[in-house]
Amino acid sequence: MSDLHWKTAISDVEPNKVKVRGYPVDQLIGRISFAQAVYLVWKGEMPSPEVGKLIDAILVSSVDHGAGPPSVLTARTVTSTGAELNSAVAAGIQAISRYHGGAIEEGMRLFIRINTKRKETGDSLEKAVQDVLKEMKSQKQRASGFGHRLHKQDPRTQRLFALARDLGLAGEHMETALAVEKGLKEVTGRSLPMNVDGAIAALLCDLEIPPEIGNAFFILSRVAGLVAHVHEEKTKMRPMRKIHPTDFEYDGPSERKL
Amino acid sequence: MSDLHWKTAISDVEPNKVKVRGYPVDQLIGRISFAQAVYLVWKGEMPSPEVGKLIDAILVSSVDHGAGPPSVLTARTVTSTGAELNSAVAAGIQAISRYHGGAIEEGMRLFIRINTKRKETGDSLEKAVQDVLKEMKSQKQRASGFGHRLHKQDPRTQRLFALARDLGLAGEHMETALAVEKGLKEVTGRSLPMNVDGAIAALLCDLEIPPEIGNAFFILSRVAGLVAHVHEEKTKMRPMRKIHPTDFEYDGPSERKL
Amino acid sequence: MSDLHWKTAISDVEPNKVKVRGYPVDQLIGRISFAQAVYLVWKGEMPSPEVGKLIDAILVSSVDHGAGPPSVLTARTVTSTGAELNSAVAAGIQAISRYHGGAIEEGMRLFIRINTKRKETGDSLEKAVQDVLKEMKSQKQRASGFGHRLHKQDPRTQRLFALARDLGLAGEHMETALAVEKGLKEVTGRSLPMNVDGAIAALLCDLEIPPEIGNAFFILSRVAGLVAHVHEEKTKMRPMRKIHPTDFEYDGPSERKL
Amino acid sequence: MSDLHWKTAISDVEPNKVKVRGYPVDQLIGRISFAQAVYLVWKGEMPSPEVGKLIDAILVSSVDHGAGPPSVLTARTVTSTGAELNSAVAAGIQAISRYHGGAIEEGMRLFIRINTKRKETGDSLEKAVQDVLKEMKSQKQRASGFGHRLHKQDPRTQRLFALARDLGLAGEHMETALAVEKGLKEVTGRSLPMNVDGAIAALLCDLEIPPEIGNAFFILSRVAGLVAHVHEEKTKMRPMRKIHPTDFEYDGPSERKL
Repeated sequence: MSDLHWKTAISDVEPNKVKVRGYPVDQLIGRISFAQAVYLVWKGEMPSPEVGKLIDAILVSSVDHGAGPPSVLTARTVTSTGAELNSAVAAGIQAISRYHGGAIEEGMRLFIRINTKRKETGDSLEKAVQDVLKEMKSQKQRASGFGHRLHKQDPRTQRLFALARDLGLAGEHMETALAVEKGLKEVTGRSLPMNVDGAIAALLCDLEIPPEIGNAFFILSRVAGLVAHVHEEKTKMRPMRKIHPTDFEYDGPSERKL
Repeated sequence: MSDLHWKTAISDVEPNKVKVRGYPVDQLIGRISFAQAVYLVWKGEMPSPEVGKLIDAILVSSVDHGAGPPSVLTARTVTSTGAELNSAVAAGIQAISRYHGGAIEEGMRLFIRINTKRKETGDSLEKAVQDVLKEMKSQKQRASGFGHRLHKQDPRTQRLFALARDLGLAGEHMETALAVEKGLKEVTGRSLPMNVDGAIAALLCDLEIPPEIGNAFFILSRVAGLVAHVHEEKTKMRPMRKIHPTDFEYDGPSERKL
Repeated sequence: MSDLHWKTAISDVEPNKVKVRGYPVDQLIGRISFAQAVYLVWKGEMPSPEVGKLIDAILVSSVDHGAGPPSVLTARTVTSTGAELNSAVAAGIQAISRYHGGAIEEGMRLFIRINTKRKETGDSLEKAVQDVLKEMKSQKQRASGFGHRLHKQDPRTQRLFALARDLGLAGEHMETALAVEKGLKEVTGRSLPMNVDGAIAALLCDLEIPPEIGNAFFILSRVAGLVAHVHEEKTKMRPMRKIHPTDFEYDGPSERKL
Repeated sequence: MSDLHWKTAISDVEPNKVKVRGYPVDQLIGRISFAQAVYLVWKGEMPSPEVGKLIDAILVSSVDHGAGPPSVLTARTVTSTGAELNSAVAAGIQAISRYHGGAIEEGMRLFIRINTKRKETGDSLEKAVQDVLKEMKSQKQRASGFGHRLHKQDPRTQRLFALARDLGLAGEHMETALAVEKGLKEVTGRSLPMNVDGAIAALLCDLEIPPEIGNAFFILSRVAGLVAHVHEEKTKMRPMRKIHPTDFEYDGPSERKL
């Protein structure tokens, strides 16, 4: 044992044995979903199957969003120079920053702030929302997780909230998020519907995920999409092509049902 | 439409609608697992629930393997300098290269080569294995996916194969992988048991995944582990500490059962 | 011209002509140093030969600092997995963050703050320094660019300042930096000698470089060192070796004179 | 001393002393150029002032080439998401891969191969060139370092070669490169003038730089350009703008003379 000796509580490896947060991984294989494993490794405890299903849903919701997001354009541009898949995906992740994917963490902090204020003051949820939004307005801050360049009614938001209710996982932060959506209309005079990041932020708060890893759900989910884009670029496109950021067209399968 | 117009078959976004490989994503949320979504976005078709379960198992098997792998040490070192989570995870992925995580793609190419040879020549599987391994030996190449620094009997390998059999997804590449394990003993005189990369390689071949994205399963899975390590480093460790690559100790929960 | 048309003032390329900030690059080759070109491309104007010499000196001062900095350990760890040189260097740069290399920008902001305060209030430099340092102390902030884990008297600091004086480029921020060094002793009671980052910060302020690109001088300089470490790792070390962060020894040429 | 003890020959740090390849860095500051320091740290020996001037010229020649190269578009795209400067520059470097910047290493290997063949066979340079180019043609390989999308007569190439001649540093690889340019016309029937990568490749061969670090000269030089683009993007552009890869216009200073 050297003077640099250190400790870690994530996983333990010895000959012929790998344990994650105490669980032998061979006992987990085939018995829990990857979504459950993600929660286990990030939170330290095994989630219920219901929580697992909600994590699955959150990860499914952000798996891809067309070829326009900067993470996709970055990963494709790096790929077009002949780089390896891992390096192109890594570059894509470097583009998942404050303005792209960053709204989950910020949304979480907002919902926690309002909810904490409500409890501390004994105010109604409506009043706590109004107070915080007005304070933000006076400081010219905007509420993360609301409004979308394209979607007036983000189809993913409603579905995620409905599922959380079905699974018995709708909590006070979901309520808070809905109250913020309503409050924003009153305070700003504009309709700023909750987007998928706002919805995920609320659900993660109710799952007691720390805000600092809120964006990690988006990163993990979007790695799936990035790999698909890198693979398509590598196998179907000419190296060093000029990649237009908006002038592309979908030519995949027509709309289909599950 | 400019002269840089291009096409993509992965996902399609229009106001209030997001479709992945043709499926409206709001219909997928809560109805398929993230593992199924990964297969869908990478392969282009919706997998059966059984294939989904096998993908889940593959992703669970590689979620973390202690604090020693170079991807973990890289992500922690970058974190210790004060970098953002996304940048630290990206750096970790840059360390998932030829010698770390790269065995899946190489193993897939080996199993496909043997299996193709067997079909083309009409030889027995045993002969095809022997011929290829001898050729590799004469060129001083080693078979990827066999042997492990630490595990004589990788606990994950057996479990994955047993699950594939239970799910009716054991195919000719699994058979090939087992024949290679046997053949290696004869050709090299050493016992080189299949490791988890070799097992995953065989399963992915049987699922008809292209070898070029074989390593992506490892990357995606390990992003989960990397996030946990980055978070632990950021919240529990002193910035700029010197990170010893082997002298660490597990201090998490004791062994427990599911 | 599309609706995404945009403008850039850095360089202009047309058939058989490349101009950087207006200067045809073929006229620059052989007539200015790379250090001058760096200043030109970053600031937009051609520096005098004296300024070029000072930039050269700043870049020389940080070219390498042993194998222990996290950027070096990161680049070597990524290299040891078989990654390409560009990817390993990129990972190293991701480790040049707040606590490693970040002191230049923070030092610049400190010196600018003190100097601005002095001018606005008409106070003496000593008083402005005392006021700012006391304010920082009360907020438990430490002054970036002072103190070093290893060097009591950073040999690079004195040399850089002497050179700036010889070149006629010593200005009010250098004076400020020296006053901070003195003031820190009085305010904290500890000797916290200026380190190389602090010295570079002062010089860059006097050269009117914007603080946001202060760290870029360190990044550019250290890319040179990182390439050397990546090359040594790739050509002399075993792949996947465990890289100890402190237990290494220099075995290069003995001390020699220019 | 642990069992992970290792050795490095690049630089040595002890209290109040930093030595690079044996030279105390405080003795180097102000006495050698950064270009000389780069050569010193990469090759291990102090270059003559003439070699330093040629390295300066090589680094100046590639400092920037408009906003169109994939490394620039990558760094700008990552910047537009709110990422830190170091992360954006790192992503840009990940795009300096086989097809972008990779021609220097490949060109070096070509010139070394021809030159070695010439010496081994005793053939004339012309014959060695013809033989190698015909062999490459039959294998459908193209010669790296020749031909350019835009420049028929790369203004940087001639200037670099003229400077090498003036400095007495024109060697047999420069001769080889010129013979390849001539030979390509005969073998392919097309005019494929040497580009700046080909010229740099020839000069680096004559300087006895190992081909594996040939691209590092381009990476180091272009880091300067990337920082300028990242800074311009961060300070002048709207976050998350859509970055067109070709529809941009130079609005910097008009052409000017040194």
